[in-house]
Amino acid sequence: MQKDLEFIELFEIYKGLLTDKQRELFASYFLFDLSLAEIAQEEGGSRQNVYDAIKKVKGKLTEYEKVLGLKEKFTQIQEVADKSNDKEIYKKIIDIIGR
Amino acid sequence: MQKDLEFIELFEIYKGLLTDKQRELFASYFLFDLSLAEIAQEEGGSRQNVYDAIKKVKGKLTEYEKVLGLKEKFTQIQEVADKSNDKEIYKKIIDIIGR
Repeated sequence: MQKDLEFIELFEIYKGLLTDKQRELFASYFLFDLSLAEIAQEEGGSRQNVYDAIKKVKGKLTEYEKVLGLKEKFTQIQEVADKSNDKEIYKKIIDIIGR
Repeated sequence: MQKDLEFIELFEIYKGLLTDKQRELFASYFLFDLSLAEIAQEEGGSRQNVYDAIKKVKGKLTEYEKVLGLKEKFTQIQEVADKSNDKEIYKKIIDIIGR
């Protein structure tokens, strides 16, 4: 499983919809960059279980983006703000959308 | 139960997270402005059931806003865009956030 970094932004946007356990798992794998084996050792489960659980979280994040489309909306907003000559406005908007 | 119109924007933002049935119910009550009794008659259920189901949808929308805060984010973005002298940028951003 490739550590696809696009999930990190989806996680930042949608983490409020995940469970504590899912957030913890995601952070261990994507943010702290632990391996599946290392997480399995920490959690006391099998590597396969960790793999499945992370795959499930990725599936949920993908589904949230599909139905809510916020990453896409934020990208569009950033593109529009980027064309503004008003750099103050640009900075404020980037700050609100967390980029 | 007062028909609190603030739920309409929450619905527009988060409807992708609701079930078909919940979307239908919300639309009947808030968008088509049917009464609880009218919806109950249409659905073949009791007024109390409809009341409970709508209350549950409102609870979900409130919860989504609590954990994702998109209505609040969109309001902030609108306020920033509103201060821009560039009316073209303002119009584009308002269009993206669906206001």
